[in-house]
Amino acid sequence: MVLAEQQARRGARSKKIVLLVMDGLGGLPHPDTGRTELETARTPNMDALAGHASLGMMVMVAEGITPGSGPGHLSLFGYDPARYVIGRGALSALGVGLELKPGDVAVRLNLATFDDDGLVADRRAGRPVDAEAARVVELVQRELDVAADVTVTLVPEREHRVVLHLRGAALGGAALTDTDPLETGRPALAVKAVDDHSRATAEVVNEVLGQSRRILAREPAMNGFLARGFAAFERYPTMAERFGLEGVVLARYPMYRGVARMVGMTVPSVPESTEDTVTQLEHCWGESDLYFLHFKDTDTCGHDGDFDGKVAAIEEVDALISRITALGPGVLIITGDHSTPALYREHSWHHVPVLLASQWPRSTARAFGEASCRRGDLGLIHATSLLPLALAHAGRLVKYGA
Amino acid sequence: MVLAEQQARRGARSKKIVLLVMDGLGGLPHPDTGRTELETARTPNMDALAGHASLGMMVMVAEGITPGSGPGHLSLFGYDPARYVIGRGALSALGVGLELKPGDVAVRLNLATFDDDGLVADRRAGRPVDAEAARVVELVQRELDVAADVTVTLVPEREHRVVLHLRGAALGGAALTDTDPLETGRPALAVKAVDDHSRATAEVVNEVLGQSRRILAREPAMNGFLARGFAAFERYPTMAERFGLEGVVLARYPMYRGVARMVGMTVPSVPESTEDTVTQLEHCWGESDLYFLHFKDTDTCGHDGDFDGKVAAIEEVDALISRITALGPGVLIITGDHSTPALYREHSWHHVPVLLASQWPRSTARAFGEASCRRGDLGLIHATSLLPLALAHAGRLVKYGA
Repeated sequence: MVLAEQQARRGARSKKIVLLVMDGLGGLPHPDTGRTELETARTPNMDALAGHASLGMMVMVAEGITPGSGPGHLSLFGYDPARYVIGRGALSALGVGLELKPGDVAVRLNLATFDDDGLVADRRAGRPVDAEAARVVELVQRELDVAADVTVTLVPEREHRVVLHLRGAALGGAALTDTDPLETGRPALAVKAVDDHSRATAEVVNEVLGQSRRILAREPAMNGFLARGFAAFERYPTMAERFGLEGVVLARYPMYRGVARMVGMTVPSVPESTEDTVTQLEHCWGESDLYFLHFKDTDTCGHDGDFDGKVAAIEEVDALISRITALGPGVLIITGDHSTPALYREHSWHHVPVLLASQWPRSTARAFGEASCRRGDLGLIHATSLLPLALAHAGRLVKYGA
Repeated sequence: MVLAEQQARRGARSKKIVLLVMDGLGGLPHPDTGRTELETARTPNMDALAGHASLGMMVMVAEGITPGSGPGHLSLFGYDPARYVIGRGALSALGVGLELKPGDVAVRLNLATFDDDGLVADRRAGRPVDAEAARVVELVQRELDVAADVTVTLVPEREHRVVLHLRGAALGGAALTDTDPLETGRPALAVKAVDDHSRATAEVVNEVLGQSRRILAREPAMNGFLARGFAAFERYPTMAERFGLEGVVLARYPMYRGVARMVGMTVPSVPESTEDTVTQLEHCWGESDLYFLHFKDTDTCGHDGDFDGKVAAIEEVDALISRITALGPGVLIITGDHSTPALYREHSWHHVPVLLASQWPRSTARAFGEASCRRGDLGLIHATSLLPLALAHAGRLVKYGA
């Protein structure tokens, strides 16, 4: 990666790169057919690209490691996820669309039920519906009275999940211990600072949690919070700084826009559907070097165990490919951020297929799928190698050494 | 690499290794046939070897990185090119056949045209023919009068390109800034030392450049130099020291002999042609452990976009293979130092095919080409792994651990 940064042509504005990510694309073979979701889908457009492209398989983080959405995407962007660690709190904050600045602290909270003795009776407060959770979160937000120089923001995520966001010069680090005792019948733990730098933050969080208990004292179920994951937001070097790339993200879900923004991409607009993602691409085409398109349905169907739904989601994207190639990108990459095999119903550690189409094809495969990618010319690469390859194919890396 | 050094049998003199490099061997498929240059060439001898050899593909430096000739060869010799960096000046000096010693400083110069106000009017002095450039370089060499304890040597390279070589105890490092302003209408910059250790060198170079302007004052076009790339020559640990290998190089072009000499290889003779390279191998056979043969025509044809010429150059080498195997090497490696696809007309980042024939074959392929190497038993390796593999096949590495 250091070499790719060093050899990147700064200010080169010739060939554009499209990075099309179908979330959780990688699959497992259906027991009846021996074919994965991608191999089952009828994808004439992607198959045609495979005939003059480069194909390969990717290790997203490390062998056997199942990536979350943050690490999977960071890897695709050329950021080693073992080095650039996004805390759970930060990812949740990005997921609800909060803007993070360096020094901000984000915490994942659970709404919980405490009994009269102050012991945890239900760590998820009976999994409230979103509207109910939103009501009590709003109540706490209104009544909270914390130090004047710290801004406290509470945002409901889904069911019992809530994000706490803190900003202010009085804060320190986020090396803090969780309060979740991990079993019922025990009291919540106090937040403790692991280093001196985080002491002020611990005090603020303990104050927020204590006041919340008092504000919610009359609630039957949702009468307090447990803290489960602290993160201080650190500024990452941007793709522009590292590789001379100005990027934009087109993604329906805030988490993916958030991860892209962390590496310096901008958000020209928010697509309303799969098809609208490509319409928005057509609208913003021409201003940037890198266009990151995110499609979520493949992952959702994978989690649901819906093999046919994932096949259909892939076919829906395939039907849009000709509108993308019509724009004339120098490099078009089609891949996933991890595998979510419908048979596995979760993110998995399996290698992810990748297709890279450019002016310099080396593959003459007849289809885009796990099997053809396994025999592909790129071989098995680490996902952080994808961006340097894209830069090379786009003519954006100068020769190394004479 | 450290393990290979540690496990190398010192003084073992049994099996010989031939490293046959066709420069820029890797290619891209011809759009009409889907076959690369190597796959198009009729290579009955290499194909026969592929039937009982090991095959694979190599990343020469890092994914997406296009290697220059220096880094590509260092990698083949087992020297990580990201760690062993050859400066442009040093490679140019090796390229014109200068002998470099530790502490020497080498600089790439351009002959340039300065106007009456001392501004750069042409950064390449109108691209003079070689004989004209040689005339003014000789003039400067004769008239220069620099500090007595520094030896200054100027050697014309090609057209406007000149190498300046400095030797002497009075010199320091070569952390120096270029003088090329990179555009016309501006004065040349003064050479500045980036560290204290390089100050004395900066003074000598500025003196050489200033005197050159005076000596060439009456020349209409070639009336000065611009400095473009400084390098202090550092001694590398030799292959003998690292792996117990005494090597020889047979290469028609000085740059390749130069890179080989940097890692301790010796030059028994200079071949006059492709065929003569093998004749010279027959002459010197028996004295050394490693025989590095370099064939240039594949790269030259690749740069020229001459697909058929590159095919013919590969076939010419193939016809010589039986004379090499007749010598009975323990290991015969056939590969390239990078790809120079005729369709791309430049060095490229594409993986490089490699064939390693020995007593211990694992492949039963029917041909030597990118496709068969991609399916090969070696898989996709970093090129610095090639030498340890060669040592293993030659019986020159002892078991690691009990």
